[in-house]
Amino acid sequence: MSDLTFKVSAVSNGPGKTTVKARKFTMVIDEPPNLGGTDEGANPVEYLLAALAGCLNVVGHLVAKEMGIDIRALSMEISGTLNPDKLFGKTTTDRTGYKNINVVLKIDTDADENKLKEWIKTVEERCPVSDNLQHPTPIDISFEKKS
Amino acid sequence: MSDLTFKVSAVSNGPGKTTVKARKFTMVIDEPPNLGGTDEGANPVEYLLAALAGCLNVVGHLVAKEMGIDIRALSMEISGTLNPDKLFGKTTTDRTGYKNINVVLKIDTDADENKLKEWIKTVEERCPVSDNLQHPTPIDISFEKKS
Repeated sequence: MSDLTFKVSAVSNGPGKTTVKARKFTMVIDEPPNLGGTDEGANPVEYLLAALAGCLNVVGHLVAKEMGIDIRALSMEISGTLNPDKLFGKTTTDRTGYKNINVVLKIDTDADENKLKEWIKTVEERCPVSDNLQHPTPIDISFEKKS
Repeated sequence: MSDLTFKVSAVSNGPGKTTVKARKFTMVIDEPPNLGGTDEGANPVEYLLAALAGCLNVVGHLVAKEMGIDIRALSMEISGTLNPDKLFGKTTTDRTGYKNINVVLKIDTDADENKLKEWIKTVEERCPVSDNLQHPTPIDISFEKKS
């Protein structure tokens, strides 16, 4: 297949809230009051975990089909821990993003443990979002000034 | 501040669709039909770009305040390009995630170009989502089997 380009347009609704459009879909991102927002949506780092969940589901089903694994039900608990000091401009040796992300997949299947371990390994390698998180992804930021 | 932990719970609604809960918020992630979904929400890699947009908005306002930059309006166009071959199990030398992400910030402000360049550099360094994308983030995946 040829390369695919995905795009979003975002508008700031103030210091904590952002409205994002992707094709016909609107996503509202906000922060809780203690992080400077109005609590009208999940926050950016929760969106990041959601992106990972969605990707693992899609690639999980794709790889399961290839491997002959029947998924009767699949759910996930995903968590990540970060130190907000750098975000708020305080001195710290910690990075600003998640230090680690933990995923627990709950799967209803007849497949044995070894097959499931192989499945997870393949899913992780082929999932775009886990690749973008686990390996460096260049980001170019430019600006256009209106005044 | 002490470390913060963020959590989401996700349920697969089939091969393309995932419903994710973060606190009181629900996010619906899906794929368009040509990528195996039912097109009921933005897809995982669009959610990833949304997370970046939301984070840049929050940190952008925080750093602008510190630097005395008045943001009258802020919007963003974010895009990323990926080769889906590895995702679909085809042989390729390309990575499976975005090869690069491009952000154009449109800002209405009186600040001069040099100050805005310094602002962007600081925002990029302090934004958790850009950190998690630009630098390796460990992901641990385990599973619990029901049968």
